[in-house]
Amino acid sequence: MLTVQDALIRLQKFWTDRGCMIVQPYNTEVGAGTMNPATLMRVLGPEPWRVAYVEPSVRPDDSRYGENPNRLQTHTQFQVILKPEPGNPQELYLESLEALDIDIHAHDIRFVEDNWQQPAIGAWGLGWEVWLDGMEITQFTYFQQVGGQNLDPIPVELTYGIERIMMAQQGVSHFKDMQYAPGITYGEAFGQQEYEMSRYYLDDADVAANQEFFDHYVAEAKRMIEQRLPVPAYNYVLKSSHAFNVLDARGAISTTERAKAFSTMRGLAREVSQLWIERRSELDFPLLKTEAPKVLAGTAVQHPADDPEDVDLAALPTDDQTLAVEIGVEELPPHVVEQAIDFVRTSLTERLDASRLTHGAVDVVGTPRRIVATVASVSAHEPDAESLRKGPKVAAAYDDSGEPTKAAQGFARGQQVDVSELIRADFDGAEHVAVKITETGRDVLTVAGEIIGDIVEALRADKNMRWCDPQLSYSRPVRWIVALWGDTVVPVHASELTSGRTTYVHRTDPTPLVRVGSADQLRTVLETHGLVIDTATRRTQVIEQSRALAESIGGTIDFEGESALVDEITNLVEQPHAILGGYGEKYLKVPEQILTTVMRKHQRYLPVRGADGALLPYFVTVANGECDDELVRIGNETVLRARYEDAAFFYDADLKLSVDDLRRGIDKLTFENRLGSVAQRADRINDVAGAIASAVELSADEQQTLARAGQLAKFDLSSQMVIELSSLAGFMAREYATRAGESPQVAQALWEMELPRTTGDALPESNPGALLALADRFDLLAAMFAIGAKPSGSSDPFALRRAALGLLSILREHQELGAITVDAGLAAAGARLREQGIEVSDESIASAKDFVIGRFAQQLRDEGVPVGLVAAVTPLADAPGIATRALADIDEAREDDRFAGLVEAVQRITRIVPEGTPASYDRALLAGDAERALVTYVEELPDHADDALPQWIPDALPLVAPLTTFFDDVMLMADDEQLRASRLGLVQTVVARAPRGIDWRALNSAL
Amino acid sequence: MLTVQDALIRLQKFWTDRGCMIVQPYNTEVGAGTMNPATLMRVLGPEPWRVAYVEPSVRPDDSRYGENPNRLQTHTQFQVILKPEPGNPQELYLESLEALDIDIHAHDIRFVEDNWQQPAIGAWGLGWEVWLDGMEITQFTYFQQVGGQNLDPIPVELTYGIERIMMAQQGVSHFKDMQYAPGITYGEAFGQQEYEMSRYYLDDADVAANQEFFDHYVAEAKRMIEQRLPVPAYNYVLKSSHAFNVLDARGAISTTERAKAFSTMRGLAREVSQLWIERRSELDFPLLKTEAPKVLAGTAVQHPADDPEDVDLAALPTDDQTLAVEIGVEELPPHVVEQAIDFVRTSLTERLDASRLTHGAVDVVGTPRRIVATVASVSAHEPDAESLRKGPKVAAAYDDSGEPTKAAQGFARGQQVDVSELIRADFDGAEHVAVKITETGRDVLTVAGEIIGDIVEALRADKNMRWCDPQLSYSRPVRWIVALWGDTVVPVHASELTSGRTTYVHRTDPTPLVRVGSADQLRTVLETHGLVIDTATRRTQVIEQSRALAESIGGTIDFEGESALVDEITNLVEQPHAILGGYGEKYLKVPEQILTTVMRKHQRYLPVRGADGALLPYFVTVANGECDDELVRIGNETVLRARYEDAAFFYDADLKLSVDDLRRGIDKLTFENRLGSVAQRADRINDVAGAIASAVELSADEQQTLARAGQLAKFDLSSQMVIELSSLAGFMAREYATRAGESPQVAQALWEMELPRTTGDALPESNPGALLALADRFDLLAAMFAIGAKPSGSSDPFALRRAALGLLSILREHQELGAITVDAGLAAAGARLREQGIEVSDESIASAKDFVIGRFAQQLRDEGVPVGLVAAVTPLADAPGIATRALADIDEAREDDRFAGLVEAVQRITRIVPEGTPASYDRALLAGDAERALVTYVEELPDHADDALPQWIPDALPLVAPLTTFFDDVMLMADDEQLRASRLGLVQTVVARAPRGIDWRALNSAL
Repeated sequence: MLTVQDALIRLQKFWTDRGCMIVQPYNTEVGAGTMNPATLMRVLGPEPWRVAYVEPSVRPDDSRYGENPNRLQTHTQFQVILKPEPGNPQELYLESLEALDIDIHAHDIRFVEDNWQQPAIGAWGLGWEVWLDGMEITQFTYFQQVGGQNLDPIPVELTYGIERIMMAQQGVSHFKDMQYAPGITYGEAFGQQEYEMSRYYLDDADVAANQEFFDHYVAEAKRMIEQRLPVPAYNYVLKSSHAFNVLDARGAISTTERAKAFSTMRGLAREVSQLWIERRSELDFPLLKTEAPKVLAGTAVQHPADDPEDVDLAALPTDDQTLAVEIGVEELPPHVVEQAIDFVRTSLTERLDASRLTHGAVDVVGTPRRIVATVASVSAHEPDAESLRKGPKVAAAYDDSGEPTKAAQGFARGQQVDVSELIRADFDGAEHVAVKITETGRDVLTVAGEIIGDIVEALRADKNMRWCDPQLSYSRPVRWIVALWGDTVVPVHASELTSGRTTYVHRTDPTPLVRVGSADQLRTVLETHGLVIDTATRRTQVIEQSRALAESIGGTIDFEGESALVDEITNLVEQPHAILGGYGEKYLKVPEQILTTVMRKHQRYLPVRGADGALLPYFVTVANGECDDELVRIGNETVLRARYEDAAFFYDADLKLSVDDLRRGIDKLTFENRLGSVAQRADRINDVAGAIASAVELSADEQQTLARAGQLAKFDLSSQMVIELSSLAGFMAREYATRAGESPQVAQALWEMELPRTTGDALPESNPGALLALADRFDLLAAMFAIGAKPSGSSDPFALRRAALGLLSILREHQELGAITVDAGLAAAGARLREQGIEVSDESIASAKDFVIGRFAQQLRDEGVPVGLVAAVTPLADAPGIATRALADIDEAREDDRFAGLVEAVQRITRIVPEGTPASYDRALLAGDAERALVTYVEELPDHADDALPQWIPDALPLVAPLTTFFDDVMLMADDEQLRASRLGLVQTVVARAPRGIDWRALNSAL
Repeated sequence: MLTVQDALIRLQKFWTDRGCMIVQPYNTEVGAGTMNPATLMRVLGPEPWRVAYVEPSVRPDDSRYGENPNRLQTHTQFQVILKPEPGNPQELYLESLEALDIDIHAHDIRFVEDNWQQPAIGAWGLGWEVWLDGMEITQFTYFQQVGGQNLDPIPVELTYGIERIMMAQQGVSHFKDMQYAPGITYGEAFGQQEYEMSRYYLDDADVAANQEFFDHYVAEAKRMIEQRLPVPAYNYVLKSSHAFNVLDARGAISTTERAKAFSTMRGLAREVSQLWIERRSELDFPLLKTEAPKVLAGTAVQHPADDPEDVDLAALPTDDQTLAVEIGVEELPPHVVEQAIDFVRTSLTERLDASRLTHGAVDVVGTPRRIVATVASVSAHEPDAESLRKGPKVAAAYDDSGEPTKAAQGFARGQQVDVSELIRADFDGAEHVAVKITETGRDVLTVAGEIIGDIVEALRADKNMRWCDPQLSYSRPVRWIVALWGDTVVPVHASELTSGRTTYVHRTDPTPLVRVGSADQLRTVLETHGLVIDTATRRTQVIEQSRALAESIGGTIDFEGESALVDEITNLVEQPHAILGGYGEKYLKVPEQILTTVMRKHQRYLPVRGADGALLPYFVTVANGECDDELVRIGNETVLRARYEDAAFFYDADLKLSVDDLRRGIDKLTFENRLGSVAQRADRINDVAGAIASAVELSADEQQTLARAGQLAKFDLSSQMVIELSSLAGFMAREYATRAGESPQVAQALWEMELPRTTGDALPESNPGALLALADRFDLLAAMFAIGAKPSGSSDPFALRRAALGLLSILREHQELGAITVDAGLAAAGARLREQGIEVSDESIASAKDFVIGRFAQQLRDEGVPVGLVAAVTPLADAPGIATRALADIDEAREDDRFAGLVEAVQRITRIVPEGTPASYDRALLAGDAERALVTYVEELPDHADDALPQWIPDALPLVAPLTTFFDDVMLMADDEQLRASRLGLVQTVVARAPRGIDWRALNSAL
């Protein structure tokens, strides 16, 4: 049996054989191999670096007293950095798995999108989680930025999770049972340490001491930066980070402290990184001399890069041929595959159309690893084309004697023709001299080569990265190009990438590199090697295979409901190979949402259900191509069971506590050091919900529900399940409340108060739920603005934007709560905060209100409401429900052509009448015809100030005509003051009786 | 070329192949691999443990900015723990060197005594430095105690110094030039880190912050001990240790702080260790189940342990045969070899004599690895012997009728003979019944086997250790026994060790294990394999070979002067093989003492001198047996040059400063945080020397010398040379002062003030030197007692015992300074300390005086002075010079037989006369003959109270007779009070005129 230490030694040997240097784990606690200066510093700057090392990675938060089978406070990473990335790191990586006796042909190994980032050190990169039969065994990242510095050259990082790999390899289900070395298990070697360090991190670490450690470490780091010593500075950054992690595991870090600490550490990491580069530069980048070989030793496949073929242009076929293109990439994220296909299809069609080549249908398909385009009947050559180049007007080209002027001579010289060769031609009705230009048609190789090269260089996704290529940038590296016209290679150059005729099928294929004879054979070659390159076909296969497997055990899969997941799966594989797995009845006691969340989000498994729609303890996973089904099934089942075991453990533990116990548990959770505990926040939410509820009418049932739900607000935050999976907050509240015998309404309100969690998420349906959700957000906003923690720039650590948007969505949806204004809600929250002794200035409340209203306008614009209409209702935004209804009314009113006239008339008044003019007039003074006519109408106009548009419009429409006449005939600004006041007061009365809060000027311009 | 990382990988492989587990370096800074819990904790308790790992060891004190070729703040140890020690760890170790491509046949590899201890963790062990051509490359230790706990089983620790080994292997002279990995040097990989961390440790670390770290870490460790969590507790012990080391490197640790911190850390280490054992015990010592194989895999030689041979006792020769014994050991310390030879010779002779075997000459010789005894003509069998067992007296044995009584019957029954078999015999003149007992003689195998076994079990040295044997204890492990009588193996059992006929010659011999046919062949076999087992022969070879080599370059060696070194060398090898090396003229500029100190003490090289006695740049090293002379020479030269390079660097740097600059430098050195800087101490010494000098007469020259030397006192402590090699303090002062043009007397005084450095060291010769030396010690004692830092038990961190003994030695030697009393000196020192604002209580001064005087008595006893004589002069101890003279006078006086009578007479008076009796009498009252006779003599007796014995004795002797008569005839305690007073006063006058300060009672009993 391969022991854990064997595995480490094998990996060391594997990577040293490939030119890596071995260093030692860092001698202070680090959370990951990435944090070792051998990675963090050495990836910076231009020097090459190849290193491999073991890193025992300390994560206090993962302390489980050694009891959890999969989680350890110190786990073993094996870290590899290749800088620059060597062009075939995936292949090298797969080879390294074979060095661990992992049969990559039997297992299902996949590269699943992972956008790695670590804000605490200003770092990000793109890459994958590597899955071995559904288990993440390695993080594979092309670093793009570290310490806030853009990296060049780009390094690739491989981080092997040794415990996971070896548990799978040894077939054990608890880390303690692994054979660590001959005759000694992992538990025997490290079990006591796991227990004791867990005790320290979770229970016994002195909080005050660790806080002082943190402060001192930060101070030392800063001092060393001032001394221009990045190494000791970084040493203290690491120590501060560990102190922070200890405090965090002890539950002693509040949200603001976290944000502040992260910001401090990010700043330090940036300064250290800059300083490191500077210092290396001062030392003339010593390692630049040790230029790394382009290609690493070993037998790993290199991406196809054929030698250029000699082409006898004269011997090229002259008839049309198929053009076939394959752009070979490393695994694209699923959503990028479709975008890439569309982009290539569109660009290729447009560019071919813009050329003078003739061509037939353009067909583009793709998988995560290749975009394949075929174009039928592409002509061998562009025809020549003639065109005229315009010179001076004839009148200016020849003098009176018909001799060419200097202008004509100059033009001819410029065109390199004799002046006698100038011809005359008509340009836009004027006669000019001109030169006839013949553009020689280019051959298909030139034209298609240029087009394909441009397309490859133009590939972009929402997130792009760089790799060893000096110029290309895309979602993942582009590694090869096949381009064939008939049986001839189309020479393509995209940055340093050149085309050939060798394609690259499954990495585990016995002959992974295959030469393609001609364009027509490309798709056949790929299909022969099992690749299903058409997305629709792949999707159908995913569904059909999965359905058959589900049916084999009498189950079904809700393909409609799982449509997005099926799409994702389709673009995670090149050759769908569905495998049925089971996880055991006993986990069905765990709430379905937990089970399906894990299956879908974490594992991309399709849940299998019975005829009644209830979950069956089965799933379907879709492997990429042929594998040892039994082996892969067992592997996937083990992963799922481990995750469910965790969940069931937490779930059972939580259920042992009453909801009131759990509610008491949130006393111990710090929300924010100035704002108190989570329990104090929950109390505030309860009170604020009561306060704002007083403005609206609730049924007795609703009042009762609100009272109880308010008492329990946020209780589930102390549950282990939510601590583990914070996305289940609210959901677990409903679950646990229901199980504890609370009424369905209370349970529902507790769930709803967390809604909406994201833009587009469901909103609370019940009034108690909505009121609690509102109170939650009012409290958050008032509190954070009170302590000065408002969002700035792109930084919104407390998600106040989301809170404001959620609040607005609820108020817009719940028209029956229209009496609750933003103002009133924030005021209630502010008052409640003051009761707790927190200083809340009026300015901060006003500022919070401005912030919310600003979000409302933005929300409307994001929904496509024209800017003018947004402005028209913005004065109503304090009551977003009313504002929303006004918008709807406006939309409806616009269908009546007369509405615009009415609005214009009202707007005319508001434009002319000075602000503050009273809506009153002396009927006696208004004696003219037009005046009297208008007075008659006005006196019949009911006051609609508090009504909505639909009530007002029918009454107001008749005013348009007399108003127009009035403005046309009457001198509004009469010299006589009283007369003027009455005239103004008359028209102002019209406005005053219109619905309040519409910006008429804005509305007028918008219509 | 074998790179550094190759070496680490090879060692990992080597040791995992032999059943070791690999662990990772510890994730907080440790000073040595020993400190990793994988050693420190796992060696405790009964569980087996085999581990190997790399440990980057951080020693802030060794920071040299990466400039020193051999010293790094982080150096790489490779650590191996084998628990229990497997019985052949040296052989395994040698094999591991071969795994590093080190040709152990070509190199000179030696195991040089090293008694390892680390008081900071309560740990000690015995073992060796392993030398490769004179360079220490490994520490090899049998741990005996760790964390204050006795270890059982005994583990062996191998700590490879990777940089040293690899520098030698790669033949580079600066660590930066080593090839660390293919294409990357050590300097490229770690140079910047060395520079920057050196900056931190030496210049930039924040002292206050690190002090707080230390305190907090200690507090966390204590808290975790209370929580019974040894792992996190130990983690914080390590962190506190590192914080301490940082402070130390920054020069921020005073002597008392060091002592206190060490005491704290030792205490913590002890508690952690106890706790670890307890916790493991509670867990039932989980690793006990994984019993380690007795013998490790691999091809390393096992120590000879032949299977028992079948012996046909009947067929044993009956004539005398040679008995030969070889006790095979691992390298004994040189001074133990002679002791062992003596012990075996004595014990064997005595035991054989006590047996009834006959034997010839006993000859015992030995080397560091074997004690070889041969006994000529040992008889095959003891003769039978008869003896009588005594019964009741005949009178009691038979009744009147001659029948045996019950007593006789009982005796016969007890002896298991019939009563008729009782005989009669004379015992001490009385006739008893008796039984004749025949003791059968035993054969030689039984007798010799028992004797040899007992001798092996009785082997002891001044420091003893245990190893894998369950009972044996000796200086180093005893590994095999050869015991032959004629050609028969004598069966010996010493604990688990059994005898055989296989000896073990040089480990690097092509056939290291050799069977010995018969006792007569043993020495021949050994000699045939090159071993020179006779010490005298070896010594001669060392001298002759060395002399020849020295002469080959026209040099000579002072074998007389180097006698102790020659003795040591003789017992460092089994086969002397001298090699001449050179170190280059340029180092001759360094003072000879430094050069020879390094050669003798560090390297055991014989310095080569020219005809004029001046050093030539050559040395002779004596390898152990045949090797590649050229290779070994180069290796030794490299080592020496590296050491000299260091020394020359410091020396040159120091010479760039004036003595006054250096004197100012000691301002910055903390002596003790309450007592101030070293400069303040030097000022005090200067003043105290002046004060005590006022009591004695000095010439003008002496006064001038004292003044200047006092100004410069201790200036060399700020020199780099002394900071590096503190044993050179004083010596460098003389050197630098001389070079700076100070007078020879001043230079000499500065040197002498440090004398004596150890018991038996030279004493100051000049008065200024003596006065400064005294002042130094008076200040130290007064100061330390003042702050309560007096010695307790075995703890004497400030070496106050040594200070007191030195002070006494000087005062005893310098009779001309007799006026300086301990009392006066301490008083002067106390006064000077008070001037500096330090609180000095009278009690502390008195206590210091008691301490010094206590040492005086001890010193005398150690010199063999009888306890009574010591007591006799102890009242004089305040003036040790006078006390010493008194002792000498007593010795002289004793040659006159009458002296004892005189003393007895005086003592008789002191015994009778009450204390406080005035030495006066009324002549008129003393009218009796005896009285008058005595008065006559007394009146002629001069007052010798302030004189020495020789002046008094001639005058006092005539008193003895009249005193005796007086006591015989006169009723001293007359009833009449006045008469009584006069009689008492008369005899008291005799005592009063005798030399003061002698304890006559003690003297009387001693004579």
